[in-house]
Amino acid sequence: MEYPSKLIEDAVNEVAKLPGIGKKTALRLVLHLLKRDEEQTETLATSLTAMRMGVQYCRKCHNLSDHDLCSICASTKRDQSTICVVEDTRDVLAIENTAQYKGLYHVLGGIISPVEGVGPSDLQIDSLIERLKGGEAEQVKEIILAISPTMEGDTTAFYLQKRLRQFQLKISTIARGVPIGGDLEYADEVTLGRSILSRIAYD
Amino acid sequence: MEYPSKLIEDAVNEVAKLPGIGKKTALRLVLHLLKRDEEQTETLATSLTAMRMGVQYCRKCHNLSDHDLCSICASTKRDQSTICVVEDTRDVLAIENTAQYKGLYHVLGGIISPVEGVGPSDLQIDSLIERLKGGEAEQVKEIILAISPTMEGDTTAFYLQKRLRQFQLKISTIARGVPIGGDLEYADEVTLGRSILSRIAYD
Repeated sequence: MEYPSKLIEDAVNEVAKLPGIGKKTALRLVLHLLKRDEEQTETLATSLTAMRMGVQYCRKCHNLSDHDLCSICASTKRDQSTICVVEDTRDVLAIENTAQYKGLYHVLGGIISPVEGVGPSDLQIDSLIERLKGGEAEQVKEIILAISPTMEGDTTAFYLQKRLRQFQLKISTIARGVPIGGDLEYADEVTLGRSILSRIAYD
Repeated sequence: MEYPSKLIEDAVNEVAKLPGIGKKTALRLVLHLLKRDEEQTETLATSLTAMRMGVQYCRKCHNLSDHDLCSICASTKRDQSTICVVEDTRDVLAIENTAQYKGLYHVLGGIISPVEGVGPSDLQIDSLIERLKGGEAEQVKEIILAISPTMEGDTTAFYLQKRLRQFQLKISTIARGVPIGGDLEYADEVTLGRSILSRIAYD
């Protein structure tokens, strides 16, 4: 496509590098910015740069943070006896949104994926072992593996179990089953099958 | 949602101001940028700012341009006897992509929409009249109205026809009909009805 302006072309090409955004959507976004105040574009650009330059990883749980230690790790109100292991920051946000978990986290920064060339050493697994050997050794009683039930996720969970076996810890995984409000006939067979195998007894 | 970082929160809020992008997509885009080189974010931010500050409107056709006069208006190879009136820059791009039109353009910058409070005076209609009265008076032979066949588009086309009646010009509109490659049974009734009314005789 021949753009009427080199500046627009450059901007469209940059925006189209974002995942899930094609050239047409990028052009729509760029033309939208042109209709708004210059200030809006300025604020957008500044906030992106500030975010990219300023965000750090928490030295303890490797979650994204504005500081050396994230607000969850720094809080004294969190239950220090449980660590929930997740793939990335979005999972932390999703779990925090449920308001059902009051423990700590450990963010792996990915999952083991031979296809994409991601091995255990690319993830924050050694640092989790260090946490359990180091200062948190006595406090931690349970590790919850909250990893997606995919092929890669199951591989990662299996590897983590093996590495964690050396500690006297309870290791658990989040429950798999039919979603609440979900209709049995629409659940896929694997989920339904697992939900029968891991059935919960009435007390 | 409680973000782990104020910087991320700010960036997500700014990105989510773009049309069609919600908080979840914005977060996905922001986390994507965090995984890439700092340079990519820097280039994105710079290109957006440069685009917003640098892009001008062509003084003749009001299309977006890097210069005072856009490349189409400045070209001597274009047919100076035809002006195609369109809603916005995207329409110019779409028509240019067909490589079927060699004339000039006039970009209205919107269409008449009482619901959104857009009246004729908010659009580049007076400047079109000025073009026809001024320097281009003798050259222009035909005005093509290439405006979307919606309620607002038809209103705009009707208004333009009235204003253009004072000139000795051929005024036309792009053909409406069944799309090429389209199946008759899937065409909507209005389009199919119009395509019968404006049937084309075999020569």
